[in-house]
Amino acid sequence: MYELYYWPEIQGRGEFVRLALEAADLPYRDVAREPGGTARLLALMRESERGTLPFAPPFLKQGDLVIAQTATILCYLGRQHGLAPSDETGFLRAQQLQLTLADFLQEIHDTHHPIGSGLYYEEQQAEARRRTAGFLAERAPRYLGYFERVLERAGDSGFLCGSRWSYADLSLFQVLAGLRYAFPQAMRHLEPRFPRIVALHAHIAALPRLRRYLESDRRIAFNESGIFRHYPELDRPRA
Amino acid sequence: MYELYYWPEIQGRGEFVRLALEAADLPYRDVAREPGGTARLLALMRESERGTLPFAPPFLKQGDLVIAQTATILCYLGRQHGLAPSDETGFLRAQQLQLTLADFLQEIHDTHHPIGSGLYYEEQQAEARRRTAGFLAERAPRYLGYFERVLERAGDSGFLCGSRWSYADLSLFQVLAGLRYAFPQAMRHLEPRFPRIVALHAHIAALPRLRRYLESDRRIAFNESGIFRHYPELDRPRA
Repeated sequence: MYELYYWPEIQGRGEFVRLALEAADLPYRDVAREPGGTARLLALMRESERGTLPFAPPFLKQGDLVIAQTATILCYLGRQHGLAPSDETGFLRAQQLQLTLADFLQEIHDTHHPIGSGLYYEEQQAEARRRTAGFLAERAPRYLGYFERVLERAGDSGFLCGSRWSYADLSLFQVLAGLRYAFPQAMRHLEPRFPRIVALHAHIAALPRLRRYLESDRRIAFNESGIFRHYPELDRPRA
Repeated sequence: MYELYYWPEIQGRGEFVRLALEAADLPYRDVAREPGGTARLLALMRESERGTLPFAPPFLKQGDLVIAQTATILCYLGRQHGLAPSDETGFLRAQQLQLTLADFLQEIHDTHHPIGSGLYYEEQQAEARRRTAGFLAERAPRYLGYFERVLERAGDSGFLCGSRWSYADLSLFQVLAGLRYAFPQAMRHLEPRFPRIVALHAHIAALPRLRRYLESDRRIAFNESGIFRHYPELDRPRA
């Protein structure tokens, strides 16, 4: 039984782990969402500050093993449960795609927090407008274009690496879902250029286990405390 | 023989790969720094834009295998050449530390580019001042404090994971070297709080292979096109 430790009120980076656990039907406890769980998360955060645990959640715990960093957790789950190709090239490829998605995610986060994660959005709103304009005009199309071409070259499988979905496909699903939530107007303009990503998103959303998860109350709704935030003033279609 | 493809005029992310190759005495070509090499790098970038290669350099090539994302390259070199613990827990730990250093590095980069990597520093200087103030007051001490505590708990070995240096130690060396270059005044105030990181830096710099590399012209000097940039107006000791 895995134990996931992550902030209980946002999808955040923990969601990439939840999606893998759910899609692979792996039993897990979402500890901080259980009664009294926030106290357990905070206790773990104090251990983290003392250096006995990694830098920041999500943490995945299994017995004495504690893993952090989303991509490392997914790498581990991928190897344990076949959620990525098992040959060396495929293993590296999945990890590399995941780290590129992590870079993309950080840029998405920084659209609303360009000056500092310790400040409120309202304290950096002017800068956020400027950063988001460049993000929607250049960075988002560049990343999406890259993943679209990876899917194009993958051919009929429709997945990023290998002949079935991997944790990287689940993560790309989540990124598109989040972008649609955060920037509905801008994405309406952008999406037609990336039909393979749109098709992958639909395919992942329709996986029976994922569909059940997404419809359940285990799936936290997107909100303005997470990575993907809908601030209408930032959501402008590209001129 | 490995082939490294990276921008020829900066240390950048490629330097983390160079340090591993040099410290492990692995033969490699730094392709873009050879005569005509920039054209070869640009050709690879076009392949990358067509989706036949990963998103961005550094690329490490060995025969038909092309690996990108610094942490993935280091993970590969680590497994092939014993540059990280080989047991599963140690393998995951090295990767997790590396990804935390990658997060730190991104925040260091964004001190001078908070609004967009496509804009010049001069176009975002006011925002850079604001972001850097928060970085030096909060983020840098938080990351450095974490790595200091990891070293403290490692005890006598003096390394981040395992009983000898790993690629993560080489990377922490590089991050401290870069911070000293970028923020000499601020680091003079900060460093006394992190004696174990300072000692690790000195130890790595004195490894015979590394010392020869650092004194050679293979080591590109820090400069204001790289990740670590010295802009005196940003370098303020914490109040």
